Amino acid sequence: MLPISSLQNPTVKLIRSLDHKKDRRDTGLFVAEGLAMLDRAEAMGWEPDILVTTKPQAIFNSVKPTIVTEKVMAELSAQNNPHDILAVFKQRYQPHPTKQGVWLALDEIRDPGNLGTILRTADAADVSGVILIGDSCDPYAPESVRASTGSIFGITLVRMKQDGLIDLARAWDGEVVGTASSAKHDFRRVYKTPTLLMMGNESRGLSHDLTSSCTNLVRIPMKEGVESLNVAVATGLMLYQITAKSK
Amino acid sequence: MLPISSLQNPTVKLIRSLDHKKDRRDTGLFVAEGLAMLDRAEAMGWEPDILVTTKPQAIFNSVKPTIVTEKVMAELSAQNNPHDILAVFKQRYQPHPTKQGVWLALDEIRDPGNLGTILRTADAADVSGVILIGDSCDPYAPESVRASTGSIFGITLVRMKQDGLIDLARAWDGEVVGTASSAKHDFRRVYKTPTLLMMGNESRGLSHDLTSSCTNLVRIPMKEGVESLNVAVATGLMLYQITAKSK
Repeated sequence: MLPISSLQNPTVKLIRSLDHKKDRRDTGLFVAEGLAMLDRAEAMGWEPDILVTTKPQAIFNSVKPTIVTEKVMAELSAQNNPHDILAVFKQRYQPHPTKQGVWLALDEIRDPGNLGTILRTADAADVSGVILIGDSCDPYAPESVRASTGSIFGITLVRMKQDGLIDLARAWDGEVVGTASSAKHDFRRVYKTPTLLMMGNESRGLSHDLTSSCTNLVRIPMKEGVESLNVAVATGLMLYQITAKSK
Repeated sequence: MLPISSLQNPTVKLIRSLDHKKDRRDTGLFVAEGLAMLDRAEAMGWEPDILVTTKPQAIFNSVKPTIVTEKVMAELSAQNNPHDILAVFKQRYQPHPTKQGVWLALDEIRDPGNLGTILRTADAADVSGVILIGDSCDPYAPESVRASTGSIFGITLVRMKQDGLIDLARAWDGEVVGTASSAKHDFRRVYKTPTLLMMGNESRGLSHDLTSSCTNLVRIPMKEGVESLNVAVATGLMLYQITAKSK
């Protein structure tokens, strides 16, 4: 069979539409590119709805690949140097967080590159899951998936409204931790498990109501004149501190 | 005097040219945008060669501002939501690192967003300076300056070839630290001062020769299946560990 060379092909059109947030929301699908990323998906037990490649490859053997020309692949790819394989998966959200281990709640992160980097870090630090609060950017956006370097397949995601998170924090058994530049205590301490860590968004930090629901506010010390750290760096510092001491 | 409305104005043309690496190299200049960033520059004692604004503002009072229309400002800005002020400064590199405190050497970082985020973190962690090795991306590129959120004005930069860094490491009094996934020791330990930390590039990590010149290799633990952390996150973890314990 000849490889698909037309941009009018329905599969090709569907995949291109998934660049748009609205189409990802309506279909519940997302795209991941490249063999390294798809290896992680396979290892974590994910199976794609659609597998598109320029040549047969030894991955997802139970899924029949759609072969396309390199020109079509370049149109499908969100990257300047397109990979030769990509796949479409169903998005996964878990309905509720568990009450064990370390949970990371993110308050309206705006930048999908930051969000993907945080998912990568949370996965490496072996958290139980990540809670996306309110009007978060889309973890399944191409830039987030790419920045996660496969961790989008390794991490449990939950969506909640702010009120739901505040209820969760009230009923939380262990410690509810947030960062604040005005906090007295240095972040380098031992945290009680289970731990619920809240991190604020890029420009305004943690909302007032979420800050109030923390049982423990800590400060990452900084040289005078420096306002803040990048949210992915700050989250990395907090997660490695929490998981180091709570195990 | 009327605000400048022509893109043919020589000052406007010069600033637009600084988007290009070659023009930044030839002129030794760079652009920083926005009042928050310029406040930090002023606080750190920098003075711009050129100050461009859409209306007079209370900053750099000794520098006569060039007033431009909002339309011209939008063309000058590298951002989608342009600020109403920007300035052109002379790039600064220090010829040699000192032998005190904590120095961070970066091995051919490729992405200016990562580099700017690392400069922001290094500034917050109060390192003595950052050494850029070999074919690094440009710390004065617009994306790096933006990601540094003003720390480009707070951090000492040095450029070196790999051989120069290896000589520095050989003569280093304290500890020369690098990360390696195969290292035995966890990174959470106490480091001797002065400390020279080497961090590798996004895809290949630290070069073989630089790894060999470390006196101490450490590992950032990760869940099985996760390959690595983003270089800015990993650098943040290392710097805060080193500066916490070495003071």
